[in-house]
Amino acid sequence: MAHRYDCIIVGAGLSGLIAARNLQRAGKNVLVFEAQDYVGGRMLGKHIAPNQYIDLGGQWVGPTQDRFLALLDEYNIPRFPSPLQGKVVLIYNDKRQEFNGFFQGFAEGDRPNVPEEEWQDAMKAWKTFDELSQSLSPQYPEANEENKKLDSQTFAQWIQENTQTDFGRWYFAYMCRAVGFLGPAEPDEVSLLHVLWGNKSASQAEHPEAELIHDGAGQIPSKIVTELNNEIHLNEAVVKITQDDHGVEVTTLKGIYQANFVIVAMPPYLAGKITYHPPLPPIKQQLAQRFPMGTLAKLLISYETPFWRSQGLAGVGMGNTEWIELFADSSDPRSGKGVLATFVMGDRYHRWIKLTKSEQKSVVLSDLAKYLGQQALSPTTFDIQDWPSNQWVGGGYAAFMPPGVWTRFGQSINKPFNRIYWAGTEIAERWAGFFDGAIRTAEAAAEAVLKSAE
Amino acid sequence: MAHRYDCIIVGAGLSGLIAARNLQRAGKNVLVFEAQDYVGGRMLGKHIAPNQYIDLGGQWVGPTQDRFLALLDEYNIPRFPSPLQGKVVLIYNDKRQEFNGFFQGFAEGDRPNVPEEEWQDAMKAWKTFDELSQSLSPQYPEANEENKKLDSQTFAQWIQENTQTDFGRWYFAYMCRAVGFLGPAEPDEVSLLHVLWGNKSASQAEHPEAELIHDGAGQIPSKIVTELNNEIHLNEAVVKITQDDHGVEVTTLKGIYQANFVIVAMPPYLAGKITYHPPLPPIKQQLAQRFPMGTLAKLLISYETPFWRSQGLAGVGMGNTEWIELFADSSDPRSGKGVLATFVMGDRYHRWIKLTKSEQKSVVLSDLAKYLGQQALSPTTFDIQDWPSNQWVGGGYAAFMPPGVWTRFGQSINKPFNRIYWAGTEIAERWAGFFDGAIRTAEAAAEAVLKSAE
Ligand SMILES: Cc1cc2nc3c(=O)[nH]c(=O)nc-3n(C[C@H](O)[C@H](O)[C@H](O)COP(=O)(O)OP(=O)(O)OC[C@H]3O[C@@H](n4cnc5c(N)ncnc54)[C@H](O)[C@@H]3O)c2cc1C
Ligand SMILES: Cc1cc2nc3c(=O)[nH]c(=O)nc-3n(C[C@H](O)[C@H](O)[C@H](O)COP(=O)(O)OP(=O)(O)OC[C@H]3O[C@@H](n4cnc5c(N)ncnc54)[C@H](O)[C@@H]3O)c2cc1C
Repeated sequence: MAHRYDCIIVGAGLSGLIAARNLQRAGKNVLVFEAQDYVGGRMLGKHIAPNQYIDLGGQWVGPTQDRFLALLDEYNIPRFPSPLQGKVVLIYNDKRQEFNGFFQGFAEGDRPNVPEEEWQDAMKAWKTFDELSQSLSPQYPEANEENKKLDSQTFAQWIQENTQTDFGRWYFAYMCRAVGFLGPAEPDEVSLLHVLWGNKSASQAEHPEAELIHDGAGQIPSKIVTELNNEIHLNEAVVKITQDDHGVEVTTLKGIYQANFVIVAMPPYLAGKITYHPPLPPIKQQLAQRFPMGTLAKLLISYETPFWRSQGLAGVGMGNTEWIELFADSSDPRSGKGVLATFVMGDRYHRWIKLTKSEQKSVVLSDLAKYLGQQALSPTTFDIQDWPSNQWVGGGYAAFMPPGVWTRFGQSINKPFNRIYWAGTEIAERWAGFFDGAIRTAEAAAEAVLKSAE
Repeated sequence: MAHRYDCIIVGAGLSGLIAARNLQRAGKNVLVFEAQDYVGGRMLGKHIAPNQYIDLGGQWVGPTQDRFLALLDEYNIPRFPSPLQGKVVLIYNDKRQEFNGFFQGFAEGDRPNVPEEEWQDAMKAWKTFDELSQSLSPQYPEANEENKKLDSQTFAQWIQENTQTDFGRWYFAYMCRAVGFLGPAEPDEVSLLHVLWGNKSASQAEHPEAELIHDGAGQIPSKIVTELNNEIHLNEAVVKITQDDHGVEVTTLKGIYQANFVIVAMPPYLAGKITYHPPLPPIKQQLAQRFPMGTLAKLLISYETPFWRSQGLAGVGMGNTEWIELFADSSDPRSGKGVLATFVMGDRYHRWIKLTKSEQKSVVLSDLAKYLGQQALSPTTFDIQDWPSNQWVGGGYAAFMPPGVWTRFGQSINKPFNRIYWAGTEIAERWAGFFDGAIRTAEAAAEAVLKSAE
């Protein structure tokens, strides 16, 4: 007779790994399937030079991300404050300026030099937005009348109605593209309710990008794996999950495996690619069709030194230039090198992906040079991680909901289906879209399996 | 060495069957894979009594659906006019009335007795809508500035801005739920551009529901199949398609098959469930995440006789009652029985799917009785086809695009990917969402394969 596992975990991203580890620690025997040839999913490091690591997926951590902080502490992984010495650069409508502040939604420090009226427009609208957001419950949005009204609008509609100036509109659109739980989405793609709720339960005001990890977040998956006794099958995508009253059967192109329970740990769209017998409830099936991944590539660009510092610059910039709306100093002091992390997001991605590889590189560098000067043109390494091209992730940072989805399909987001439990950052109630959210869902799924197994 | 097919067709819905048949007629050897245990997909008949057939999927055909009409003629399948003798019933805000007209978007015949001001509101807005729609190109919407503006709005926004009365708003929302290329969607789920373009290229003004088919559309798939020399594998879902310069390899849980070309004939969301090596281009991958299937169940209710006729009623009704917004006489004169086809759509589906099976039946019948009287409570058969529960179709009638999708991702809708070609009603440029559109895409895909094979 075939071996029967206590639990099979599908997906070896952070959430799948944590679920597997926690179950194993509780004495259960587990098996993990991963479609790709590496563990970690969107937690993905790269060793680019002796002593130098970059993160092609997530990298930052913030002070209220308790679960992720606990994980780092547990494995004794040290952090350092995200470098922000010096001035930030803003290029707005081709005008470049340096200022002692920052904003990604919430404004901090000095204000940039944009016309008073435009800045006040943005700030006033932000206050309105944040108050509306704070009035929501931090739990998954319910399908009550108020939420239905918010959900029936796009964020673009709200921006149109609540800002009067170009800068005000860009301010919110930029936030919509730059924040983790938001895809990125362009404002006309995403539900107002989704943005408001995300801002409540995964808020930029809590500084989720406050710290970075020495040697990168990408070191974490392999640390978790060493605990798992090699019970991980790489390059083995699950294609079918069959269950009845007695157990679950998991099918891949290499074999059929038995278990008492299954945890599917990935974005709902990916979970929807698997065939289920019996089929998933219709609302859950249709949620998988309506929860798309963001349109974003991450770029890591490294230099001999963080050259911007000698110019009094923080290596952080934002603006409405042609390709790069945001970049941030991600230099690990241990390496002594300079590293910028940047993104090509939303509509910019659509234009950029049509370019040749060498054009993709040169347009990004020439944009960066506008912010940081000519030295930006001569990096030592240049890495592109094109998440929408990865069919086992489907995009990045994370998934977002178009209008009308939360209040119609949201109820099914984390509901177990008999012996099948769900995990993954997309279904988190707190810090959705972030590492921390991925861990929370994994802990909850593992606990639920333990409880069901009693 | 394994047999090598000229072309493998994935999906045995109408589009897959036509593509296979056309290729075979051109002398090619083909193999068709179908995930389910029957051929036809959304073209699905049921034999409910001697001489009596119903269509659980599509059933109607209209005078400008050339390709579908040609198919019916070719197989000598006779049609009859959709029964519409007698008065239509409208129940609006609990007030029941009979009138000699009909509307599903376009209004025809007499107008119903709703307050003049409300009716004029709807008619005026319809004129505005139709003019805007006619100003579009009938081709796939391009990503030009005008279309981007239309695409960045939901249909709900347009309705809000262009109607002043409750009836006016309901009129458009009802159309949004009742028309084939529209999912159904609720107005706040769908892009204005999608609705406008659909109204242009698959217009209700062309009467797509003018005729019905004796013994049902469901008889067609098996007629096509007899031509195919049994080269169809049922219950064999394709899970992976690998291609290189020399050919294509198609993987199922039962085997691996070789071919020169592949046609994937299904809605883009379903096509996205398959793994591709090399992976699909990113824009095509993300389109599959953003093109959801409508939320709809079809119900077929049959009676000893079309009892409504003796009351001077057409067996056609619409209104904003709790469950049933639209039903239509679908009685085949050959059987002598009475048959009503109806739908539970959009938000009504969400409420309805939470009921027990027997409640689902009783609420629908009691709604029907409001339109047609107590006799409606005693059907001889009652069939529910719950398309969102079917994981190989995912919903019905068809797929629709949320805001922002057409002008960002639409360009990839039918672009071949090396040796892989696409078919299915969702990607049709004319009559998308209808049988006719499915045939058009299949003919085009088969032709493209023949051309590439030269
Ligand atoms: C560019 C980028 C930057 C980010 N920045 C940050 C940041 O700074 N801070 C932060 O907290 N978060 C950040 N995030 C988000 C963070 O990376 C994610 O929240 C987290 O990694 C998600 O983990 P997960 O386990 O939920 O999903 P995933 O990492 O997506 O894991 C899912 C896994 O399932 C596998 N899989 C899919 N289908 C199958 C199948 N059928 N069978 C088997 N396996 C399958 C996939 O290959 C994948 O490995 C960022 C993400 C991206 C893309
Ligand atoms: C309730 C309802 C009413 C409708 N009314 C009308 C009408 O009156 N008139 C009209 O013209 N149209 C109508 N339509 C639409 C019409 O039915 C469709 O346009 C048409 O049938 C679609 O055909 P298709 O081949 O494009 O897709 P489908 O019929 O969906 O065929 C796709 C096939 O692919 C199979 N498949 C999916 N994944 C895989 C896989 N991985 N491997 C192998 N096979 C796979 C599916 O099982 C399915 O059989 C209606 C549809 C519904 C649901």
